[in-house]
Amino acid sequence: MKKLSSLSLAILALAAAGAARAEEGMWMPSQLPQIAAPLKAAGLALDPAKLKDLTQFPMNAVISLGGCTASFVSPQGLVVTNHHCAYGSIQYNSRPDRDLIKNGFLAATFADELPAAPGSRVFVTSEVKDVTDRVIDAKVAALTGKARVDAMEANEKALVAECEKDAGHRCNVYGFYGGVQYQLIKQMEIRDVRLVHAPADGVGKFGGDTDNWMWPRHTGDYSFYRAYVGPDGKPADYSKDNKPYQPKSYLKLASSPLKENDFVMVTGYPGRTNRYRLPVEVDFTFSWQQPTVISAFEQRLAIIKAETEGRKDAELKYASTVAGLNNTMKNFQGQQESYIGSDILDRKQKGYADLKAWVNADPKRAKEWGADFATAEKLIAERQAIGKAEMAMGMGSPTLLGTARTLVKLAEEQQKPDAERKSGFQARDMSRIAAGLQSLERRYDEKVDKAIAASFLVKYLAQPASTLNPTFLSALGLTAGMNEAAIKARLDVLYAGSKLADRAERTSWVGKKPADFKASDDAFIKAAVALYADDEARETRDKELGGRVQQAYASTMKALMAYKASRKEALYPDANSTLRVSFGKVTGRTPGADGSNWTPFTTLAGVSAKATGTGEFNAPAAQLAAIKAKKFDKYAAKELGNVPVNFLATLDTTGGNSGSPVLNSKAELVGLLFDGTLDAVIADVDFNPKMVRSIVLDARYMQWQMKVVDKADNLLKEMGVQ
Amino acid sequence: MKKLSSLSLAILALAAAGAARAEEGMWMPSQLPQIAAPLKAAGLALDPAKLKDLTQFPMNAVISLGGCTASFVSPQGLVVTNHHCAYGSIQYNSRPDRDLIKNGFLAATFADELPAAPGSRVFVTSEVKDVTDRVIDAKVAALTGKARVDAMEANEKALVAECEKDAGHRCNVYGFYGGVQYQLIKQMEIRDVRLVHAPADGVGKFGGDTDNWMWPRHTGDYSFYRAYVGPDGKPADYSKDNKPYQPKSYLKLASSPLKENDFVMVTGYPGRTNRYRLPVEVDFTFSWQQPTVISAFEQRLAIIKAETEGRKDAELKYASTVAGLNNTMKNFQGQQESYIGSDILDRKQKGYADLKAWVNADPKRAKEWGADFATAEKLIAERQAIGKAEMAMGMGSPTLLGTARTLVKLAEEQQKPDAERKSGFQARDMSRIAAGLQSLERRYDEKVDKAIAASFLVKYLAQPASTLNPTFLSALGLTAGMNEAAIKARLDVLYAGSKLADRAERTSWVGKKPADFKASDDAFIKAAVALYADDEARETRDKELGGRVQQAYASTMKALMAYKASRKEALYPDANSTLRVSFGKVTGRTPGADGSNWTPFTTLAGVSAKATGTGEFNAPAAQLAAIKAKKFDKYAAKELGNVPVNFLATLDTTGGNSGSPVLNSKAELVGLLFDGTLDAVIADVDFNPKMVRSIVLDARYMQWQMKVVDKADNLLKEMGVQ
Repeated sequence: MKKLSSLSLAILALAAAGAARAEEGMWMPSQLPQIAAPLKAAGLALDPAKLKDLTQFPMNAVISLGGCTASFVSPQGLVVTNHHCAYGSIQYNSRPDRDLIKNGFLAATFADELPAAPGSRVFVTSEVKDVTDRVIDAKVAALTGKARVDAMEANEKALVAECEKDAGHRCNVYGFYGGVQYQLIKQMEIRDVRLVHAPADGVGKFGGDTDNWMWPRHTGDYSFYRAYVGPDGKPADYSKDNKPYQPKSYLKLASSPLKENDFVMVTGYPGRTNRYRLPVEVDFTFSWQQPTVISAFEQRLAIIKAETEGRKDAELKYASTVAGLNNTMKNFQGQQESYIGSDILDRKQKGYADLKAWVNADPKRAKEWGADFATAEKLIAERQAIGKAEMAMGMGSPTLLGTARTLVKLAEEQQKPDAERKSGFQARDMSRIAAGLQSLERRYDEKVDKAIAASFLVKYLAQPASTLNPTFLSALGLTAGMNEAAIKARLDVLYAGSKLADRAERTSWVGKKPADFKASDDAFIKAAVALYADDEARETRDKELGGRVQQAYASTMKALMAYKASRKEALYPDANSTLRVSFGKVTGRTPGADGSNWTPFTTLAGVSAKATGTGEFNAPAAQLAAIKAKKFDKYAAKELGNVPVNFLATLDTTGGNSGSPVLNSKAELVGLLFDGTLDAVIADVDFNPKMVRSIVLDARYMQWQMKVVDKADNLLKEMGVQ
Repeated sequence: MKKLSSLSLAILALAAAGAARAEEGMWMPSQLPQIAAPLKAAGLALDPAKLKDLTQFPMNAVISLGGCTASFVSPQGLVVTNHHCAYGSIQYNSRPDRDLIKNGFLAATFADELPAAPGSRVFVTSEVKDVTDRVIDAKVAALTGKARVDAMEANEKALVAECEKDAGHRCNVYGFYGGVQYQLIKQMEIRDVRLVHAPADGVGKFGGDTDNWMWPRHTGDYSFYRAYVGPDGKPADYSKDNKPYQPKSYLKLASSPLKENDFVMVTGYPGRTNRYRLPVEVDFTFSWQQPTVISAFEQRLAIIKAETEGRKDAELKYASTVAGLNNTMKNFQGQQESYIGSDILDRKQKGYADLKAWVNADPKRAKEWGADFATAEKLIAERQAIGKAEMAMGMGSPTLLGTARTLVKLAEEQQKPDAERKSGFQARDMSRIAAGLQSLERRYDEKVDKAIAASFLVKYLAQPASTLNPTFLSALGLTAGMNEAAIKARLDVLYAGSKLADRAERTSWVGKKPADFKASDDAFIKAAVALYADDEARETRDKELGGRVQQAYASTMKALMAYKASRKEALYPDANSTLRVSFGKVTGRTPGADGSNWTPFTTLAGVSAKATGTGEFNAPAAQLAAIKAKKFDKYAAKELGNVPVNFLATLDTTGGNSGSPVLNSKAELVGLLFDGTLDAVIADVDFNPKMVRSIVLDARYMQWQMKVVDKADNLLKEMGVQ
């Protein structure tokens, strides 16, 4: 293992200036000093070494909300992030007589700040440690398959447990380069988070789904939280006695106007990319998986629409599900648009062939990695076949059956000492499980759920009988080739036979014993009990396969790293929800959408041009009046003759980067990242610098709206810009 | 009068090469030889004199459909126009089991062609004659006000009657330059028009209201008619024995590919522009009229939405009304966007001041026109005041009251010999009146109509009592300041007291005598009878004012013409539904919409990018499949690597130009004009060459769709391109 670690370290230590392009790369902060030359060349005015230390400015001002990124912008723990990242908290605090979504919110004083939605967190990174040798220790190195995965998981759990002994902290082990390297990241977990300010959704969500992933864009996607800690300065549950958290550093708003071609960088927590996927995976994703998911989601959406027709309550319950399905569909459709007719697969195949040729050109390399390529391909094909066979089974599974399965599994796991329980079912996971059980009915309607289940079970049961899961069939009383009417009749019996739709009933099962479940006559619990052994067996199968895939895949990554090292090229790891830095410049795009080129900035002129006074383009009247009167205050950009609203930049980002601060060459805040263009969503797999653009909220628009329209002078003052 | 005519002729005879810009001007064909130099400079390869003769190629291939333009494209009377111009005929031939709107239509043989919607006409211009001296004869010259208008109308009617003695022809007198010049235009009126081909509305209407007036655009806005005449070659009613009309000329599809910066010209029948309005009118239009209409239409739309909620039938009845209201609103909002913050009024005022200064700088000129400027301004202000006072009265008038007023007036007019009847109420107008009465219920719902009337009557009755029309109040039983509940109660009585909602009842009144109306106890007929004298008096008042305005306005136009002549600048008249020619070039726009620049062509790539499989972007699956497979046939443009779909051109056009053939330098067909960009709608008043772009269907897209997707090989062959 030493060898692997030292190899990867050797790669990371490369001062591979020539290969680091401004447009591509989500760099680990630790890599930045090593790409100092391109950073400087691109325009960074700071010493790149300053960006390496996560506990110093500016990196320690960048925080995670879990799924979104944010940053401290005042010494009093004021946090800025996207409106869509704070949306749950805005919604949570809305009532029929106080519609914060529609009207926005501004706390006049600290005392007026509102508790964020339950579960809201601010994570402040306090430590990052390479733990590769502790995750892949000598014992692990000797194992394969599930045994290897289990051993690694045990090592990871031990590391996490040891780290989390420090109260108020959350620790996680992250794998890099497909499992070549592991880091233990320790974060202070602030639990008292409050909503400070949000614009009306006619600003914060201006353009809605229509403009999602689109340019030209005019969205004021910002909101403010504040982090609170106990009187002792440590994380605490919500209390009136809590004090604003005083971060060691915070970002300052830019002192000079941002212009076209300026250097920008973005720091944040991108969730996941797949830049190093094997050609066989790329083909599977684009030729089968995405088209299948798109059509399945279209089916779901049609059912939800039909089954909620005329039932406002049910429609509202599914509003966020519908938004989520549409969002994913638009993403996948965008990727399909980019993929079909492109040379992506050809290039992936060529790159892969080049790598294999390089490996096989040297007997030592061939001996070390040669076989792993074939192994990886074979195992991945196996995994894909399973995915194809089981997809409709998953989609046709009633929601409450899923709940029952979680409850049964929880009961079984709780028979073990906490440390031996499966990840996701430990004491530390209980509050999340409880919250899920509590809130289920807010997005559940039996009629809709049953229709969806029926529709996908029809598909599943129409597959060849030999590919069907017999346990699943018998647990639910289904048979191969069953027709729709019979499936519906069977589902009627199951749904009628379960009380899990009732919240009290559902939550009462937490803490019960396996024997209690076995004695239950609740239809879905009975089915879950019947499925348990098979579910476990499939989990084991997947883990065994996963472990073997991971091992073979890591070997191909090691070969790639060695190959790149031989060419003195730096290699950034795929995004994995850890802190990264991307850099690039403010620039438009030629071509833009068919029939246009994109210029880098939009302005207030576009807001009023798009405003319709209703729906997705419902700009507030006060805002439109201010635009009409050209009340630009000091926020207009001279060269635009107007206030910049959003801008495009060549920044390599993805989901999870939402809310990320975008910084200028002096590490001053110039905007908040909130989206990418549709043609760019395929960048998760294949980065095309000519087409990929991130969409950023210009901080001048935020300040203009706060000052001129929403009168949030208190916050501007707190941020030191007034 | 001679003097005026000779003055105007002098102006028209100006070879004002320097002043004719490619971007602006809807030129009368007769003016073209006089602007030969700029036409040649812009790239026209033909002799401009060839464009002067309306009875020769290419001008005689350009025809009017009444409201839309079209052109002959085969020796067999094949006509191409916009899909939206043939929409009524496509709709008319659709049935639940044969949805031609959704699926499109292609007649396999001549025998399969379908009759166009009743009233469909093809007008082929056969003669154009200057009749200024016969409209403004010695008698007219001595009159003012209504007497002048009546005398002119009598002269015009006599001219029309004389001309229409030639059976199968329709004649009209058109005023140019605000009544300085008059032309008698004689057109053959072909009455047997048949639908030959229309693409699916997912092609022909792709983008719907969302893309209306927008760029980038991807609309396949084309359809085909065929003109039929009797066996004797003369216009005839529909008959199986009719033969395809054989036009003297027809347009040929372009033989060389159109490119950026190429010369293009458009020939067609633009409806109306107001380029020479006085500043006081410009101010009134933009500062009062448009905002008032926008808000009134918003009110109507809100009422229609609320009152048709849950009533699919009523919703369908108002679908085209809603579309029309939205269309006008989008137009006005676009104009408001362009106007607010612009220097339009300043420039109009400056131009007007310059003109006045030039007039007053010379005693002879001052004597001839000086007083007319003040007179025009004063009279226009009077007319505006009346418009303001009566607007809500008009909007609050129940639809059936309008019907009753038409019927009463028709009965009164029918007491006179046909020649003395008011225009619009002569024998020649009867079929139009009958059609209107027949079809009223297709767009009428009592609940909606009543709610709209109530809503605007509330507004009207809230005006100062002194401004209200006492006859209107007493006829409807209303009083100043009446509250909403009382107005509604009164309307309930009126609607309940009328049978005009019944078609048989409504149409039975045609041909009855004034005494029959006076004896009626139908609530709306009673009200109409009570209103008749006042309606006539207001009409007389408006005519008197109109006549005086026209006279003063014509004088200011004469002054303008003389001014322009003194500067050797050509002056094209405002659009008035007569045949015009505009020329310009294919080019994009910088800036485009906020955040973008526009490139001149869109392509099939944009069709699939926008396609959603539903609603306004429902591109047919077969089309998407062909795009995906890159089946471009021979229709791709090399420099785009794709088939061009729509293009932008600096062509001066307006409503009525829809369907106009767009020609290249050799007068070959390269596209069909179908729209302008939103920023350009204000061009009806103020032409800004930097911003105004016409949107044209590229003929290559039409041919591609016909060939590759719709298999309309028969028509391509007929057009000689296959």
